[in-house]
Amino acid sequence: MRYDVVGLGIASLDLIGVTEEQPLFGAKQSLTGWHEMGGGPVATALATLARMGARVAMTGAVGNDGYGQRILADLQTVGIDTQAMHVRPGTSHVSFVLAEPGRDRRTVWWHNDPTVLEQVPLEHELIRSARALLIDTHMPQVALHAARTMQATGGLVMIDAERVREHTLELLPLCNLIVVSAEFARQATGVVEPWEAARVLHSRYEEQLVIVTCGAEGSWCANKGELFHTPAFEIEPLDTTGAGDVFHGALLYALLRDDPIRLAIRFASAAAALSCQGLGGRGNLPTVSEVEALLEPA
Amino acid sequence: MRYDVVGLGIASLDLIGVTEEQPLFGAKQSLTGWHEMGGGPVATALATLARMGARVAMTGAVGNDGYGQRILADLQTVGIDTQAMHVRPGTSHVSFVLAEPGRDRRTVWWHNDPTVLEQVPLEHELIRSARALLIDTHMPQVALHAARTMQATGGLVMIDAERVREHTLELLPLCNLIVVSAEFARQATGVVEPWEAARVLHSRYEEQLVIVTCGAEGSWCANKGELFHTPAFEIEPLDTTGAGDVFHGALLYALLRDDPIRLAIRFASAAAALSCQGLGGRGNLPTVSEVEALLEPA
Ligand SMILES: Nc1ncnc2c1ncn2[C@@H]1O[C@H](COP(=O)(O)OP(=O)(O)OP(=O)(O)O)[C@@H](O)[C@H]1O
Ligand SMILES: Nc1ncnc2c1ncn2[C@@H]1O[C@H](COP(=O)(O)OP(=O)(O)OP(=O)(O)O)[C@@H](O)[C@H]1O
Repeated sequence: MRYDVVGLGIASLDLIGVTEEQPLFGAKQSLTGWHEMGGGPVATALATLARMGARVAMTGAVGNDGYGQRILADLQTVGIDTQAMHVRPGTSHVSFVLAEPGRDRRTVWWHNDPTVLEQVPLEHELIRSARALLIDTHMPQVALHAARTMQATGGLVMIDAERVREHTLELLPLCNLIVVSAEFARQATGVVEPWEAARVLHSRYEEQLVIVTCGAEGSWCANKGELFHTPAFEIEPLDTTGAGDVFHGALLYALLRDDPIRLAIRFASAAAALSCQGLGGRGNLPTVSEVEALLEPA
Repeated sequence: MRYDVVGLGIASLDLIGVTEEQPLFGAKQSLTGWHEMGGGPVATALATLARMGARVAMTGAVGNDGYGQRILADLQTVGIDTQAMHVRPGTSHVSFVLAEPGRDRRTVWWHNDPTVLEQVPLEHELIRSARALLIDTHMPQVALHAARTMQATGGLVMIDAERVREHTLELLPLCNLIVVSAEFARQATGVVEPWEAARVLHSRYEEQLVIVTCGAEGSWCANKGELFHTPAFEIEPLDTTGAGDVFHGALLYALLRDDPIRLAIRFASAAAALSCQGLGGRGNLPTVSEVEALLEPA
């Protein structure tokens, strides 16, 4: 296998402003920090995997602007193969993130040109050369084909879903690993309690493992008819941006090295908690030994 | 004279996000537009002058980052000579502006590295080669010397002051044209009413012309013992960012072609109003004939 994981999804550029003041609409306020960082759920999950030593590639598209060039350069810097990334006319996916250290709150304003993500071709050979595929919900057409391709080779398919969009629910039956936010679980099931939503999703797709993540409240996993909770690690978060993305990457890493599921989720939770101690999604991507130090303090 | 106006101040990069939704802290919201545009009060005033056909140069500094390169390229594109712009280690001045078309509200979060603006050298010859100097309050040390240099040649010195900072009040006696926001006038005088603050400032600096701008409420001018109000033009603003900057540039333009003061302020108000119909500070910089069409409808 040439790659451990291939990701298909959006890669973005996050501009992170750090404020010590109480932000106020209509005001002109100075920031104490300004950081530019690659972002996007799939891209950050792949960056996590690369940081842990996995071989990863990404497919998708950026716009033909300066932001797109910076996104690609950033993916390459963190060790992601970008040969299957396409450049399309239009503006890239870009976000301004207002981070308020000390408060567990962040505000995101994002923009993209949807046409950039249209007609991204299926990278058949690339997908067949990997052990696992990670998809999001932004390019459902090609994601459907990609998931079927991966299913046919017997590899793992993980989905990261934040919101129910068009065709999102058609993707779920094709995924072995459905790892979603509490908000998505609520939208997809109509059930408010995350643990109950996890159970409902699992009974809908019986073969699949379902995890619903709940921020500092940890996560609920429904697997093989069983439901269990994994608490989050107690940390002083600096910025929780991307916790879910790092969780996805670390979970795939642990599953690909055959950790049992409960251990794999603990590993992912520890990695996500560590990432909350840095700015943005990639300000503190942990190594395997850093995660293991948190799991088993000496 | 090689230049009509030399500007000494900050040049920034404004990233403008346009939202149609009610913005909300703690949320993740999509923007309907994302624009990158040069900004900064002095830079936008110079861009206005250049648009009107004046010969202008800017001195100051940007950081040695990608933003600095984009700021310089943008100044050049609008016709500003940047040979006296310096590149210093550190991050450039950059802002995220949240624009809400339809509501006269914008929110600005800005960041810079103050060391970038330290020790900007005095461009003695450049200043002596111009008819007027425009300064802001960000580099008071070099601005003091620049203003004295210009005074000695008998040229005009205009200051754009938004906020009372260190040494700001030492700059005022060196300026022929004190054109400030209502907020600055209040801070500098302790007087709440803009017309009264204009009178207080004018009696403090008897030789100087004082204008206090009040957004859609127009402006108050105190000159040669006289006080008068100029109403704003009634327009449907799209984004009022930079109205004051365009007002400064257009006012200098009109005064340099020897318009009487009341006419010059009307010219500046018309230019500022037109600029409010475009996004950001430079989304709709008017030409002289566009301003004149608003002043004297056919
Ligand atoms: N404040 C926190 N403290 C400790 N761990 C956290 C915190 N926030 C998140 N985590 C860990 O990260 C996991 C995923 O977080 P979350 O549920 O917020 O993901 P998400 O909603 O997809 O977030 P994002 O959009 O930021 O990626 C949680 O299950 C938890 O293990
Ligand atoms: N909504 C508006 N409609 C019409 N004219 C306006 C409007 N806002 C501003 N102006 C014109 O621009 C002039 C300067 O505006 P303002 O007082 O807001 O400057 P400022 O506070 O320096 O703003 P900025 O920081 O955006 O440059 C006003 O005196 C007025 O003539």
